[in-house]
Amino acid sequence: MKSYTVTFMPDEESVEVEAGTRLMDAAERAGIHINSLCGGEGVCGRCKVKISNGNIHADKHSISLLSKEEITEGYVLACQTRVDSDMEVFVPAESRIEETQILLESAPMDYSEPEKVLVHRVPTDPLSLFEPVAQKIFLKIKEPTSEDNISDMDRVIRELQRKTDHRGFEVALRCLQGLASKLRENRWQVTVTIAKHGDIWRVLDIEPGDTAERNYGLAVDVGTTTVVAQLVHLKSGKVIGVAGNHNLQSRYGEDVISRMVYACGREKGLDPLHDAVIQNINRLISTLTDQKGIDARDITAMVAAGNTTMSHLLLSLTPCSIRLDPYVPTVSTYPQVRARELDMQVNPEAILEVVPGVASYVGGDIVAGVLACGIADKPETQVLIDVGTNGEIAIGNNEWLVCCSASAGPAFEGGGLRDGMRATRGAIQKLRIEDGKLYYETIGKVKPKGICGSGLIDCLYELVRNHMIDPEGKFVPSADQQGRLAERDGELQFTVASAEESEAGHEIAITQSDINNLIRSKGAVFAAIKSLMDYVGLKFEDTETLFVAGGFGNYLDISKAIGIGLLPDIDPGRIRFIGNSSLMGARMCLLSTHNLERAAQIARNMTNIELSIYQPFMDEYVAAMFLPHTDKRLFPSVEY
Amino acid sequence: MKSYTVTFMPDEESVEVEAGTRLMDAAERAGIHINSLCGGEGVCGRCKVKISNGNIHADKHSISLLSKEEITEGYVLACQTRVDSDMEVFVPAESRIEETQILLESAPMDYSEPEKVLVHRVPTDPLSLFEPVAQKIFLKIKEPTSEDNISDMDRVIRELQRKTDHRGFEVALRCLQGLASKLRENRWQVTVTIAKHGDIWRVLDIEPGDTAERNYGLAVDVGTTTVVAQLVHLKSGKVIGVAGNHNLQSRYGEDVISRMVYACGREKGLDPLHDAVIQNINRLISTLTDQKGIDARDITAMVAAGNTTMSHLLLSLTPCSIRLDPYVPTVSTYPQVRARELDMQVNPEAILEVVPGVASYVGGDIVAGVLACGIADKPETQVLIDVGTNGEIAIGNNEWLVCCSASAGPAFEGGGLRDGMRATRGAIQKLRIEDGKLYYETIGKVKPKGICGSGLIDCLYELVRNHMIDPEGKFVPSADQQGRLAERDGELQFTVASAEESEAGHEIAITQSDINNLIRSKGAVFAAIKSLMDYVGLKFEDTETLFVAGGFGNYLDISKAIGIGLLPDIDPGRIRFIGNSSLMGARMCLLSTHNLERAAQIARNMTNIELSIYQPFMDEYVAAMFLPHTDKRLFPSVEY
Repeated sequence: MKSYTVTFMPDEESVEVEAGTRLMDAAERAGIHINSLCGGEGVCGRCKVKISNGNIHADKHSISLLSKEEITEGYVLACQTRVDSDMEVFVPAESRIEETQILLESAPMDYSEPEKVLVHRVPTDPLSLFEPVAQKIFLKIKEPTSEDNISDMDRVIRELQRKTDHRGFEVALRCLQGLASKLRENRWQVTVTIAKHGDIWRVLDIEPGDTAERNYGLAVDVGTTTVVAQLVHLKSGKVIGVAGNHNLQSRYGEDVISRMVYACGREKGLDPLHDAVIQNINRLISTLTDQKGIDARDITAMVAAGNTTMSHLLLSLTPCSIRLDPYVPTVSTYPQVRARELDMQVNPEAILEVVPGVASYVGGDIVAGVLACGIADKPETQVLIDVGTNGEIAIGNNEWLVCCSASAGPAFEGGGLRDGMRATRGAIQKLRIEDGKLYYETIGKVKPKGICGSGLIDCLYELVRNHMIDPEGKFVPSADQQGRLAERDGELQFTVASAEESEAGHEIAITQSDINNLIRSKGAVFAAIKSLMDYVGLKFEDTETLFVAGGFGNYLDISKAIGIGLLPDIDPGRIRFIGNSSLMGARMCLLSTHNLERAAQIARNMTNIELSIYQPFMDEYVAAMFLPHTDKRLFPSVEY
Repeated sequence: MKSYTVTFMPDEESVEVEAGTRLMDAAERAGIHINSLCGGEGVCGRCKVKISNGNIHADKHSISLLSKEEITEGYVLACQTRVDSDMEVFVPAESRIEETQILLESAPMDYSEPEKVLVHRVPTDPLSLFEPVAQKIFLKIKEPTSEDNISDMDRVIRELQRKTDHRGFEVALRCLQGLASKLRENRWQVTVTIAKHGDIWRVLDIEPGDTAERNYGLAVDVGTTTVVAQLVHLKSGKVIGVAGNHNLQSRYGEDVISRMVYACGREKGLDPLHDAVIQNINRLISTLTDQKGIDARDITAMVAAGNTTMSHLLLSLTPCSIRLDPYVPTVSTYPQVRARELDMQVNPEAILEVVPGVASYVGGDIVAGVLACGIADKPETQVLIDVGTNGEIAIGNNEWLVCCSASAGPAFEGGGLRDGMRATRGAIQKLRIEDGKLYYETIGKVKPKGICGSGLIDCLYELVRNHMIDPEGKFVPSADQQGRLAERDGELQFTVASAEESEAGHEIAITQSDINNLIRSKGAVFAAIKSLMDYVGLKFEDTETLFVAGGFGNYLDISKAIGIGLLPDIDPGRIRFIGNSSLMGARMCLLSTHNLERAAQIARNMTNIELSIYQPFMDEYVAAMFLPHTDKRLFPSVEY
């Protein structure tokens, strides 16, 4: 078949592909990751690229999603365009998936001295003792004599028991093969790697000499949008590195539903999704180990947390029954897996624990979050709100826990909005309108490319506070003193940054549809909180602390989040933004087997309320589609 | 390099090999297994073959081991002769390893109705309940509903618990992958294979539909000389087939010591020994499954018993420290292994349990034997004597157990004697001299090829009873009325069958060295029994039953075994020949997890007396080098 050369600009990366290859796939092969919300269906318009040289065929999708100017300039959708000549293609910044500056954890817990500071924040709680899921124990073993000639394995285990206080060791055949000479050639000095498995400790590896210092673990938050990993020194408990990247599954669909549709709608549809997230994690491993100069074989344990679909895809389990009534996952309590089973590029015998979930739409990420907040440990009732593509809420104390999940949409992660973007370099993360003038701040203090979650909350709040939108979210053209309101493609939009100021090549704006979108999202989240509070018969005032987690950005202005009616109107001092609580919980499990057990306990004890069949939720949702809310009494402190 | 064609006769099997290939290896490649006691060192003379066409080079080994006639006829040692021309080679019957008619178990226990007859002979003992180590459970599972939407795995486990009463199931990732569609495509009817592992049950496999009937296990006795396997239907407990073959490790050495020397004396010396025994077992599996028309994938469990060296070689564990002071094995309690780890051709997830051993020279075979005899279950003191290449003795009751091992040599298995052979087709297994006339009976009622263990005991007894040898074992030429005594190659020999009567191509005889050899063997076994009895302060009369196990043949004349001083002189009615007790114990473990646990308990509780450093044993050994014994009072009933 005929081949053509496609050169991507400004990267100047060329790739030779067969005629008929999608431009999107050609870009992937050239190492350029192109944005996509819809999984390549031609409906989100995020993958637009400009053909600067070669045949241009604007298809029906391009025509409906691109402006006339763009079409004239040669813009097409990369997912809908097939290579039929040599081409030069310009990929604009906003069409790229950026690997830098992923939002990581903003930790309320200090792990810098875990020997002293116990893993859990309640140091008096014996369950929170520092006990990494995988440990390396250096053993100096006494040589056998005629009086003491038990088998080599029994000798190793006897010494392990002396050094660890653990009981019940299991040694795989693989570790026994060659053991006799390993012991004798190294003067009976070896380092044994052990990992907790159920009630016993499994020997994963036996290395010559003393390698006890070289023991690392990985805590991973497998988000629908981003994957974040922390590299942890398991002996000291110190976090020594953190890295994140965009979930490579995005090319098969932006949200969990579209990925399930992809996985279940075709033969072997699961494989590319599974492979993608493994590639995500392997890239993070390689980044972190390169940065820190450690050998990936010294990573002996991983704990991953994610929603039920992400956890299933990670383990190559079909997610197909998750999305169909009665919403049944294959498994809620995941088995311990070895790295080699999933081709993860660490020690092949390293264990992977996946934080257990509660139900199809309440996954290990929220369980990890509940663990991290310590909600299940205190008698006072507390709340966790995790705002992601799904909004997940958990309420409870050390006696009971309820949770729910509501489809919030990706708006607060920057998805589905014209100039929304993830919290990466160039995103407007803070915004303020003072005396009619607009101020903003971007991540990395560079020219803006778009607006991330925290910026969007600020923007919505500032617009309503300045009466530029009414409580229903409709633009009020009469209030526009600076001429920022304009009509484009048939709808009003508010310009945040002009084309000149921006890096995007055009103005950065928030449109009427964007605002409607944000109101739907915040409405869904608030309605979920309110429904769940009502369900358990509590008022907002009854909660001691309200933890907010999510990918808004590095920071979240809590008053403004209350101001738009996203968070309930309680004393802002009792609301804590904790960033990535899923990652935090995963790391806690990595550092303490007790926490891993506690996570399983939380998952078992948490009652899931299925909102999709809970009528009061729908009423609450409708009532919340107003700024801040149709029931003004719920937000007494909010005054625009 | 130049190649030559070697044709083996009378098989007419041709093989093309490179110049310089050993004839022995060429034969192996042609599928002809040539005997060897010395591991191809040119010192046992068992591998003689006749070159009927091609270059003949009689080397120094051949000259010292073959008779002048043989050399003239073209006989050489296959292990010392290299191919340097096209050749036609005749392999005489006695130089072959025969695969037929291996001695199998002569069971004192009836497994024909295990549902009624419990696995153990003490049916009141709850520990002996029928509970195969791997089970297939057919499940008809209720479909999930909105009210009952636990995960697929939890649903399967819930049903498993209902059907089995077991608690604590573990499901490997592999079994979860694809589970969702397997359940839904088969109307929630699946068969789950589970196997006990420590305190929990592991799910090995989940198959569509009802396959519970198709569940088989393999009990294997891995002997130094022969490997025997029983195919067992695990649902009913019925033995449905049995097969044996000669341990293919023989080509690397006849006894455990020479195999250890082979494994430890060269780079990767362990591999061929390990591969050989796996090949043994795989051949038995293929024989049995072909015979019975079953799918090898339906074999889900195996239990193997063998001495410590055989068990190590089976698991590819180096045996090197076993033979060196202080005699330490790598492991005594073997880990549960999956078939795929050892490339065993059954269900790749099938489990392999190896019966635990006590010490370097008291292995799982004797533990299995003790289990099979029920010694550890009764208050009365009983004895097990397993006569193999090593003589192993265990004495005890339900409160204590002691054991020991003495190097008896392979004489009673037919090894190391001029016309000794294993208990296969053509072996003289019974022999009687009455009124100066000699009667014998061969296995298979065919022309004799040699003499097996039971025949050798008979022969020795008849010779001494007829005063043709004196109590020291020396031939008494004056007593030879039939002219059976003759001198050959410088020593006296007693002809059992003439060249015309025999299949061997020469007369079958017992030489003066053979007799000395047998006396050393019986002396070692008896001395071991006596030493151990003295050690525990008991007399022979104190034992309720004395079980005799070993590869003597299909039958053993107990009075004659007492008559030569091999077995103690107690009421023959209290001595029971039980054949292959190791195989019997392995099958008991296969059919009852309780027996497997009991085996571990026996191994832990049995005290090993190291005879090599126990002075009284040496004295007893010297005293036993007499027929029946230097101390006549020990054998009051024996009168020649």
